[in-house]
Amino acid sequence: MTQAAPQGASDAPPGARELLLQTASDIMREGDIVDISLSELSLRSGLNSALVKYYFGNKAGLMRALLDRDMIDIVHSVDALMAKDMSPETRLRRHIGAMVDCYYQTPYLNRLLMRLVRESDPDEAKRIADTYLAPLSRAYDKLIKDGVAQGVFRNVDPQLFYFTATGAADRFFSTRLVLKHCFDTDSLTEDLRDAYRAHCIDFIMAGILAHK
Amino acid sequence: MTQAAPQGASDAPPGARELLLQTASDIMREGDIVDISLSELSLRSGLNSALVKYYFGNKAGLMRALLDRDMIDIVHSVDALMAKDMSPETRLRRHIGAMVDCYYQTPYLNRLLMRLVRESDPDEAKRIADTYLAPLSRAYDKLIKDGVAQGVFRNVDPQLFYFTATGAADRFFSTRLVLKHCFDTDSLTEDLRDAYRAHCIDFIMAGILAHK
Repeated sequence: MTQAAPQGASDAPPGARELLLQTASDIMREGDIVDISLSELSLRSGLNSALVKYYFGNKAGLMRALLDRDMIDIVHSVDALMAKDMSPETRLRRHIGAMVDCYYQTPYLNRLLMRLVRESDPDEAKRIADTYLAPLSRAYDKLIKDGVAQGVFRNVDPQLFYFTATGAADRFFSTRLVLKHCFDTDSLTEDLRDAYRAHCIDFIMAGILAHK
Repeated sequence: MTQAAPQGASDAPPGARELLLQTASDIMREGDIVDISLSELSLRSGLNSALVKYYFGNKAGLMRALLDRDMIDIVHSVDALMAKDMSPETRLRRHIGAMVDCYYQTPYLNRLLMRLVRESDPDEAKRIADTYLAPLSRAYDKLIKDGVAQGVFRNVDPQLFYFTATGAADRFFSTRLVLKHCFDTDSLTEDLRDAYRAHCIDFIMAGILAHK
């Protein structure tokens, strides 16, 4: 990323970097896409697109910064949840609810992650994996094994469970345009989010709880 | 789609259309992508890329034809499963297994569907929805309601269940590159497919079965 002062940087209002990231997030969320045009970003943010070069180097750098912004929040939330003194069942219920809320806010997130892993060089792909995926993988491992050890959860594989749970939570919001075209609805309403959150918690917990 | 005889069409070997589709499928499966380059398609299939124009009009037409090929199979399989005389529990177990096998074969399928719904004009998006999504939605509705009526399934919403079940089945194979980079494995092995099939059937059935 270049640090040289580019055209436009001297005009940047306070918070311009965050505004560019949030506007990119809004565009991808509303369009159900994992890409932006710099001209639309400039138009919607009211900021000179030279600022993208100043803050992020290029569009790919902006995408990496957006992934970092969104994933850091998740890793911190999961760390905080794991640090709390609560039962595995309560912890998992809260985590599933938080996941649904997360995909409601950033429905592009998993696809952005896949795209950046795919398009990055091996070092950057490894950085993404080490920084964001490994901590989540370790948290799932501990959470599920704690529950199995206490006899609360059935003996499921934590890694396979990670895929089923996140896939279930993500799917509703990453198929938004299908909902719109097929069922004449838009999945990004708060009512639908709440209904899907309740369904996911109910369904995933029923799938994992040991029946006594 | 143009039907005019293009350069290369007279040389087309028997089965050239099917070979182009299968090669496009292979490229997207192996690369974990939802796009192809015509030059790679030509190189791998050994066919002149003018045949794409002949059979499909353009690359977008090839993508539509691939979606049709893959989705017609699924709709027929689901119709056949629904026509068989079996219990809702057996039917759902078989369906989940078939879904996992399907995403193993065509991990790009959900993303291709989303892409074509997004990029098509409203008429074509409606055709895709009416032809492929509505029949699946009706099948889920009947399958789940039959099971609920018989007291075998808990009272879950069939449409929300559709998203959780397909999301869970799809996720493993659509995150293949993450598995590769993060866990040093490749989800497209038959052993992993079998393990994930067993996990999905176990987990989803545990989530939906009524406990007596």
